[in-house]
Amino acid sequence: MLRAADVAAARALIAPYAARTPCIRSPWLSAVTGHDVWLKLESLQPTHSFKVRGAACAVARRSGAATRGFVTASAGNHGAALAHAARMAGVPVTVHAPRAAAAPKLDTIRRLGALLVADYANYDEAEHAALADASRTGADYVSPYNDPDVICGQGTILLETLDDVPACDAIVAPVGGGGLVSGLALAASGLPRRIGIFGVEPERNPAFTDALREGRITTIPVLDTIADGLGGNIQPGSLTFGLVRDLGVRMSLAGEAAMARAVCDAAEHDRLVVEGAAAAALAGVAGGAVAGAGLTVVVVVSGANIDRAKLAHLLA
Amino acid sequence: MLRAADVAAARALIAPYAARTPCIRSPWLSAVTGHDVWLKLESLQPTHSFKVRGAACAVARRSGAATRGFVTASAGNHGAALAHAARMAGVPVTVHAPRAAAAPKLDTIRRLGALLVADYANYDEAEHAALADASRTGADYVSPYNDPDVICGQGTILLETLDDVPACDAIVAPVGGGGLVSGLALAASGLPRRIGIFGVEPERNPAFTDALREGRITTIPVLDTIADGLGGNIQPGSLTFGLVRDLGVRMSLAGEAAMARAVCDAAEHDRLVVEGAAAAALAGVAGGAVAGAGLTVVVVVSGANIDRAKLAHLLA
Repeated sequence: MLRAADVAAARALIAPYAARTPCIRSPWLSAVTGHDVWLKLESLQPTHSFKVRGAACAVARRSGAATRGFVTASAGNHGAALAHAARMAGVPVTVHAPRAAAAPKLDTIRRLGALLVADYANYDEAEHAALADASRTGADYVSPYNDPDVICGQGTILLETLDDVPACDAIVAPVGGGGLVSGLALAASGLPRRIGIFGVEPERNPAFTDALREGRITTIPVLDTIADGLGGNIQPGSLTFGLVRDLGVRMSLAGEAAMARAVCDAAEHDRLVVEGAAAAALAGVAGGAVAGAGLTVVVVVSGANIDRAKLAHLLA
Repeated sequence: MLRAADVAAARALIAPYAARTPCIRSPWLSAVTGHDVWLKLESLQPTHSFKVRGAACAVARRSGAATRGFVTASAGNHGAALAHAARMAGVPVTVHAPRAAAAPKLDTIRRLGALLVADYANYDEAEHAALADASRTGADYVSPYNDPDVICGQGTILLETLDDVPACDAIVAPVGGGGLVSGLALAASGLPRRIGIFGVEPERNPAFTDALREGRITTIPVLDTIADGLGGNIQPGSLTFGLVRDLGVRMSLAGEAAMARAVCDAAEHDRLVVEGAAAAALAGVAGGAVAGAGLTVVVVVSGANIDRAKLAHLLA
């Protein structure tokens, strides 16, 4: 049973691996929404994604035991994060990834010395292969989302945020497998006052929206989205489903055009490079995911690993 | 007579106006140079430029007396910075800027409520007009570089950097009027060990390189450069010339193609939006401005105010 105190404990564990990222104010999102909107820049992490937090927590807790190494499945960012943390701990890692994963993510995984198998049609196939690899080799499987250490690592984002933006009323994050929003909700559950936790999924990959409506993890078709890190189904039995349902995460959807526009708006107005998944959260906020006005809202800019040609195309 | 202690004192003065920016490691610049290269992200300041530090220092020290307001000349970033700080202090400000200043810089100046006169052929003409405005109206002229408070504010960058990257051997910054490198050199002069201060000018605007060779401030032709913030001559009698000469700032030059490439490399490898002036420093480092190998080098990413269309064009 995960507790908020586990997130607080993760903070010290991940410190050697992850950056203490800043929050900056977004004048344009504040003007558009009527809220006071801040951006938590996880795009500045080593490997340019928040995923380094969860991976670091798993590696810090388990690298002593993991003599047979780590294995994972990833759309790219979690794989790079695990490669980063495992390299610092001196433990080998294998990453299974979709063929169509963003090139900068795959480049980082290779540069950090992980064994990369990028040979799958989509995330779901990579996940099946990674689980089979772990069974076969005895390596320690670190899911990008269905893992208590990963969830606690991601939750540290909220604790840091509250140090920098103490007035925070709500935090908004992109949702793929739900590790990030689960961690945020878990962290919030231990606080003396209520912080709203908002998740944004791509319209083309509404795994949680569908599961919450049905009351169980369902199977959705896997479609391409600009938020390439958010594609795929939720692993059966995933911890994240119960956390999202029971801790009151409010879920909304972002369309492809809105996410493309958010990539451009972030570059033009916040002078930030953001990837599609981060754009999902920005698009959600711009589109009214947090109702009302006058709140202090923090958006998790989850990562910056967008292909240069894709960025140039969107900005043109 | 400016002293290193004035920079230390500026740190507390600017805290209400300026961000405490982070340093991130640059794997690609480290690989290219053989140094351990870090980036000081002044691009994350409010107004997206380091200039907020110097302007904040001037406003904090002088806004009580400045009943007739502030006036300045600026290629854009200093004007936006002064508008930001003066608005917080409730003092009016007039900014004289070149017609061709980058659109996002002028937009920010207007948004922050300054009176903007963007009606000059180049920076030098804007500077003459701003000085005349100050004489006529009695407003307090805050030069973007030739001002003790501005120089001390910029110097705080080095003190912050050393807290985050204590191994720092050298710091590299772009040079226009020389306020930033003067402040860095002044701050370094008070430290117990030697930190190398490196300045990079555009080849097309070598005002300091020329002045140092001649032993006096000279007049150079004003040519267009991608580093639009670095164009123009040095005001006669500028404090910055003596500081740069006497405190051992090492100056080098960056060409237009190298700066354009650095804008792309920063986006592709560091996932950062950077403007031309910041690219000058990155290009200088990539081109070998800091000789040797194995040093810890910090590059000041001075700002991110690049026109979206220009960025798209460069990335394509």
